Amino acid sequence: MCLADVQRCGVHVNELSTPALLIDAAAFDRNLAAMAGRLPGDRLRPHVKAHKCTAIAAAQQAIGHDTFTCATPREVVGMAHAGVGTDLLLANETVDAERLRAMAELDVPVTVAVDSEATVTAAARAGVSACLIDVNVGLPRCGVAPERAGALADQARAAGLTVRGVMGYEGHLMMVADRAERLASVERSMQLLLDAHAQVGGDIISAGGTGTFDLHANTGITELQAGSYALMDTHYGRQGLPFEQALFVSGTVISVSDGWSVADVGLKSLGMDHGNPQVRDGKVWFCSDEHLTYQAAIQPSVGDRVGVIPAHVDPTMAMHEAAWVIRDDEVIDRWAIDLRGW
Amino acid sequence: MCLADVQRCGVHVNELSTPALLIDAAAFDRNLAAMAGRLPGDRLRPHVKAHKCTAIAAAQQAIGHDTFTCATPREVVGMAHAGVGTDLLLANETVDAERLRAMAELDVPVTVAVDSEATVTAAARAGVSACLIDVNVGLPRCGVAPERAGALADQARAAGLTVRGVMGYEGHLMMVADRAERLASVERSMQLLLDAHAQVGGDIISAGGTGTFDLHANTGITELQAGSYALMDTHYGRQGLPFEQALFVSGTVISVSDGWSVADVGLKSLGMDHGNPQVRDGKVWFCSDEHLTYQAAIQPSVGDRVGVIPAHVDPTMAMHEAAWVIRDDEVIDRWAIDLRGW
Repeated sequence: MCLADVQRCGVHVNELSTPALLIDAAAFDRNLAAMAGRLPGDRLRPHVKAHKCTAIAAAQQAIGHDTFTCATPREVVGMAHAGVGTDLLLANETVDAERLRAMAELDVPVTVAVDSEATVTAAARAGVSACLIDVNVGLPRCGVAPERAGALADQARAAGLTVRGVMGYEGHLMMVADRAERLASVERSMQLLLDAHAQVGGDIISAGGTGTFDLHANTGITELQAGSYALMDTHYGRQGLPFEQALFVSGTVISVSDGWSVADVGLKSLGMDHGNPQVRDGKVWFCSDEHLTYQAAIQPSVGDRVGVIPAHVDPTMAMHEAAWVIRDDEVIDRWAIDLRGW
Repeated sequence: MCLADVQRCGVHVNELSTPALLIDAAAFDRNLAAMAGRLPGDRLRPHVKAHKCTAIAAAQQAIGHDTFTCATPREVVGMAHAGVGTDLLLANETVDAERLRAMAELDVPVTVAVDSEATVTAAARAGVSACLIDVNVGLPRCGVAPERAGALADQARAAGLTVRGVMGYEGHLMMVADRAERLASVERSMQLLLDAHAQVGGDIISAGGTGTFDLHANTGITELQAGSYALMDTHYGRQGLPFEQALFVSGTVISVSDGWSVADVGLKSLGMDHGNPQVRDGKVWFCSDEHLTYQAAIQPSVGDRVGVIPAHVDPTMAMHEAAWVIRDDEVIDRWAIDLRGW
């Protein structure tokens, strides 16, 4: 079914072929408003890796955010081609000369993260003009050690790059269960970033994510990188955040046996790194490539629909070509997941 | 980089942008030969869900297999449009009228699995002409209870469908570690299928998978459905099967710290339902959306390549647009993963 069909006919959600990725427009709108109310304009740099969808980014821009975070060069290039965002950050390292050049040649200003001499050199050679020094703030992933951040900034400036500031990602703290403990840990982690910034300079101190969005009032960062808040998933859902589940995968019951039912929502349509999804009114037993075996609270019939809640929104989005936008069970739009790949 | 570039220039594997899905042509060829030697022609009905790639299916056809198993209507339609296969089985249930009609209208004969009155009715109404009765042989997923298979076959014939036989999938036995125990379990499971076949009739008794490919000498099945054998993964690699790892994801080291390194092969490029991938010469710590943090045996430099072995081949293939075919580190072809989606 194409968008023209949907708009012509007022299609009901249950007429979509399945598995169908659904966005609840009302919940999505409330999530965007809740975040923009707290972190308006460029105090939030929405992370497009969570949705890989320029239509969603355009909605984030419409509510006031003009600066965006990307995880892959293709996200940066796709955002620029869609004309969304006035300041794009690749919050990731790359030494891919072809991809760096593609980003450098865009009309929109692009900033890339660097954390080593090799990444500085690659960016400068490709014609990239601006960078952030990516600082390790405790997560064993990318980022220069804080005490070496100043020296790397000097190298970057010597190579001709404008150093706009620092970034760090306290990803190891997103799921600390106790809020007070999470807050204290985030503040300790951000002190590392501030120490690095004191050596590096620049206007930007960028950090954070959905799980720590409300813990930065006193950390000194100038902007928060968050993406999952717009759609949410069962993993973040356990954190008691003021954002609602807005993303579902609609499935069709294709088989019913004594004790279990099977829907056509398999692990190829669901990010599985955070474990199994949940179903409304039932208990998930396991996922196969193209099947979800579950125990329904009330035995369904073959052909019934079942709503599945992904455990991790980011990879789930990346597995689908498009999401259908739903309001009161009516399909009102089709958003291409147009930033997939690298 | 496009295929024309590759063929013109003799590109080295390390010139590909990453993450890059790689197929080792020599290992792939040996896997296909090993399986075709044991199960030639239509004794194997290769399962395309494992690769979602018509170029791989064409290689399976070239070595003698003309019949294919599919998990989604799009796989069936894509195979037909590519002109690969003379007998396509949708080994899965669907009541999607539009997709059933699309399969019924193909020039190649299509058979669909049915396990309920609803699936029989939907197939017959859409103009599908042939079915297999899908029988539950112990895995809690699709399949009619064996004792009801005969009655369902009668319903299917009454609805105008040709009943070609039965299928069952002993997926719950693929990973039984002890071979003798696995064999005994498979034989018990297949007895259920034979009992059902005695009621159903037809020429086809279809079952099995890569993990049980050599356990069916005395089970009475007429054909084996297997897909993973062509490419393999770390999960099946533990089984001691005579198939080699032929699928890798090549990554680039983008960050090196004291104690760990980071490659650009994240969980959006890897099927994660069987857990973390493995790296050559190192130990994986964890995967993030776009990153793999690992401990290398010998500390690499930024820009070095790292070979990553997926834990589960099926969803890994479904996450990539194409695979690069490699022989002696030279890129010799680009195969589109052209059967993705549903």
